[in-house]
Amino acid sequence: MTQVEVSSMDVPQLYKRHIFACHTQRPPTHPRGSCGAAGAQPLWDRLLRRIEAEGLASEVGFTASGCLGFCSVGPLMVIYPEGVWYRPKTPEDIDEIVESHLKGGRLAEELVVVLARS
Amino acid sequence: MTQVEVSSMDVPQLYKRHIFACHTQRPPTHPRGSCGAAGAQPLWDRLLRRIEAEGLASEVGFTASGCLGFCSVGPLMVIYPEGVWYRPKTPEDIDEIVESHLKGGRLAEELVVVLARS
Repeated sequence: MTQVEVSSMDVPQLYKRHIFACHTQRPPTHPRGSCGAAGAQPLWDRLLRRIEAEGLASEVGFTASGCLGFCSVGPLMVIYPEGVWYRPKTPEDIDEIVESHLKGGRLAEELVVVLARS
Repeated sequence: MTQVEVSSMDVPQLYKRHIFACHTQRPPTHPRGSCGAAGAQPLWDRLLRRIEAEGLASEVGFTASGCLGFCSVGPLMVIYPEGVWYRPKTPEDIDEIVESHLKGGRLAEELVVVLARS
């Protein structure tokens, strides 16, 4: 694996972490499903509110994304630089991601989507 | 800075790198501008074609994103896990990012957006 030596260049990093949350919305009857149809929006709204309420907005970026794949297990979000994919289903799941990952630096293990590299 | 110890858990990573490319399209007269209005789409089309042509599609994810901010310097894209933000303007810039960063593991330095963390 080639590594880009970012540290060798004076490029300040904007965020400590950057969340991309799938905003894909397909019709409810679409065979692939979608994060939108699976109820993503209220969860993302809560996540953004919690990031702001916890004073994390300056270090945690939050960006809407298109389809991340794996639509059947959505809603899906991914946090970089760790590259951890989560599938929250409930407001409590969002709180767990905020508490464990964003504040505690620990994986919210039960919410991780385990994906084998193809 | 808290670090999540991803390596301590057996979560295979899906991609070696993951590109998020801004697809925001505002009207040409919008005061903020947008990556779409700055000509992003043909560049992203080329980037995706080059990723596929170079046989990188299994290791480099490419996902559309919403607004990444800094709209005046777009088109903007970010590559994780390095967290490097690029502002390609021409097809040659796209080729440089593919050759230097994706294939060579070197920053395409002249295309990096240097962003101070707020």
